[in-house]
Amino acid sequence: MLTRRTPISVAEAQARMQAVPLKTATEVVPIEEANHRILAADVKASYAYPHFRRAGMDGYAIRAADDHDFPKAFKVLGEIQAGATWEQPLASGEAVRIMTGAYVPDDAAKVIRIEKTRAVDGDPHRVKIITGESKTNITETGTDVKQGETILARNQEINPGGLAVLRAFGIKKVTVYQQPRIAIIATGTELLNSTDPIAPGKIYNSNGIMLKNLVEETGGVVDFTTQLPDDAATIERVLKQQMANHEIVITDGGVSVGDFDYIGDSARQADQLLFNKIKQRPGSVTTAFVQDNTLVMALSGNPGACFTGFYLYMEPLIRRYQHQKTRLQHVRAILAAPYNKTNGFDRYLRCRYEIKDGHYLVYPNGINRSGSLANLQTTTCLALIPHSTTPMQVGTETDAWLLPFK
Amino acid sequence: MLTRRTPISVAEAQARMQAVPLKTATEVVPIEEANHRILAADVKASYAYPHFRRAGMDGYAIRAADDHDFPKAFKVLGEIQAGATWEQPLASGEAVRIMTGAYVPDDAAKVIRIEKTRAVDGDPHRVKIITGESKTNITETGTDVKQGETILARNQEINPGGLAVLRAFGIKKVTVYQQPRIAIIATGTELLNSTDPIAPGKIYNSNGIMLKNLVEETGGVVDFTTQLPDDAATIERVLKQQMANHEIVITDGGVSVGDFDYIGDSARQADQLLFNKIKQRPGSVTTAFVQDNTLVMALSGNPGACFTGFYLYMEPLIRRYQHQKTRLQHVRAILAAPYNKTNGFDRYLRCRYEIKDGHYLVYPNGINRSGSLANLQTTTCLALIPHSTTPMQVGTETDAWLLPFK
Repeated sequence: MLTRRTPISVAEAQARMQAVPLKTATEVVPIEEANHRILAADVKASYAYPHFRRAGMDGYAIRAADDHDFPKAFKVLGEIQAGATWEQPLASGEAVRIMTGAYVPDDAAKVIRIEKTRAVDGDPHRVKIITGESKTNITETGTDVKQGETILARNQEINPGGLAVLRAFGIKKVTVYQQPRIAIIATGTELLNSTDPIAPGKIYNSNGIMLKNLVEETGGVVDFTTQLPDDAATIERVLKQQMANHEIVITDGGVSVGDFDYIGDSARQADQLLFNKIKQRPGSVTTAFVQDNTLVMALSGNPGACFTGFYLYMEPLIRRYQHQKTRLQHVRAILAAPYNKTNGFDRYLRCRYEIKDGHYLVYPNGINRSGSLANLQTTTCLALIPHSTTPMQVGTETDAWLLPFK
Repeated sequence: MLTRRTPISVAEAQARMQAVPLKTATEVVPIEEANHRILAADVKASYAYPHFRRAGMDGYAIRAADDHDFPKAFKVLGEIQAGATWEQPLASGEAVRIMTGAYVPDDAAKVIRIEKTRAVDGDPHRVKIITGESKTNITETGTDVKQGETILARNQEINPGGLAVLRAFGIKKVTVYQQPRIAIIATGTELLNSTDPIAPGKIYNSNGIMLKNLVEETGGVVDFTTQLPDDAATIERVLKQQMANHEIVITDGGVSVGDFDYIGDSARQADQLLFNKIKQRPGSVTTAFVQDNTLVMALSGNPGACFTGFYLYMEPLIRRYQHQKTRLQHVRAILAAPYNKTNGFDRYLRCRYEIKDGHYLVYPNGINRSGSLANLQTTTCLALIPHSTTPMQVGTETDAWLLPFK
């Protein structure tokens, strides 16, 4: 059956996606598993850092009152290795050998670097300090961080440097946003299993592995994938099952205007149809709807359209689920090689970019049909070819979006 | 014992690292595990893509000879769903209903979109084509890729788009470079275990978790980590064990000029001492040596110095192991906030950057002592403060390196 659809702009479609409420939740994870997770709460310092007065250099710790009139000899009371403490009082004329990072005696005001000292007659209990120095070579308690200060802030993506900070404060677990769990359903009787031999009329499910990995590197968790033949009852049953236990379901295929528009049928019957036609190429049939608080994103089965649709609509959603902005970087760019096709809808052209003299130059990347996929590996940005009846001239400035993790 | 060291420039230290031969090897992995691995061989198309003539639209397939003088009625022979094939000859005046993505009959030269057709008296075996159209709506065999063409090239990092390409060609496994297996050994009697309570003079091993995650997100595999007290025999034993079965070992701590320079001792006795003093802050004691074909990178135990040393020396090495260039992006940048400290060595200042009007502006990030770590999470670039006796003025242009995955 041929049903009419009302096309909306990409901006309007993105705004409708943005308006869908998401029930984000938090969870507690050990820091060993927290790299690149998003903090859901500020983390405060439970103690100052450093939490003891620390020697910045190898040398000899002395009192303030002795810090003048060098060279002179000192009695060496002992040695403080890193990791040790020292409780014995330090009198005038006395020094303690101290290692970098070690606990500085409370009485000491300065560490004279070992380079500024000499042994006295080979006596391990005596040292001569040759010259003084201006720096104390002591890192005072709390120099880096005061107790109670925020050490990592909410909504930051934890990175290896952040893990060092957490470990330094003895923090074992952090509260992070849950990652959205996403089901991916590919439809199409033409889809082979990956172990089947190639056959006429059939294709492999190339979108499935692409979407799974795109979701994962965007911060989502894919906990269900399947591929289904074009059978209305099967598609409806599996879609309902997955909607029942997912907040987000991605489908691909089954949204064309023909007889097998099964996902489109579900969309039209849904609580809220967000859109089922967008003024864009490729992927004008891209569809989204909400049913029982589950968002279903129905991407085109065409590889190029599926790829583009993911970046335009799903990437921002998965980021938002974890309180992040899209990582597609919007820039103004210059079309640097010819693209002659025109269209009544805006085209998101798969391109490569380079930066020259501070300008982003975009080059159409290989074949840009919606069904072509050879360029997906090497596409590093999407560039806008606005709808027009005349081709965009080389050298024209336009909008482009640099793709993350490419 | 106090031993003299000969300082070299950062560029010279990096050149010496670059000159170390690496025995890179390849391995075969299933494509399901290949995202972000580096291809070690070109991948060729074993068949053309598409591998059959494919309908680009839902509609009716007709012969070339019938493609004129519309409107006219056609006899409908049947329907070709996506995934099916069609062998029956197509005579003049005959059409076949066909779905997007389906196999086009060999006799057909065009697919007339369904929007251009009407039913005839409700008869499913007849259709009227109202108007013709210029496009064939058929994607010919090999339009996207010819058989034998390179579909992914050697030394590319596979991404989700690339996985789609591999799957489309039925490729189940790819040959990629082995990831370097790296052991990380932290030294220092001051190091607590992560489950110990904090104690005076002691610290947690913050470098350990940082280095492990930095190595992993750079493409290495960490298969051994430990932390050892400052005991010469223990350090020597564990270091030797790990050198015996690793091409790369990272240590941190134990390279200061003091009494506990155990790693430094191993360096001096090694087959090839690459360097043990670099004209840089922080981390001038950063040391590297090769022994029995194992490279040992001895980073400072100071968190800031350890962080900086990883990016300056280890990141390029791990990338090179997999035939990649460093992902630190070198830019010219402007110091946008005061930094008044001067030093006889070049300083790699931990900074944040922003791009304004096409310029990179760098801001010193918090406390830049070598022992400070509060800024490691939020540092997004390293900026060069060249050695000088006068502070670098705000507004001065300098070199900066944007950190990857930050």
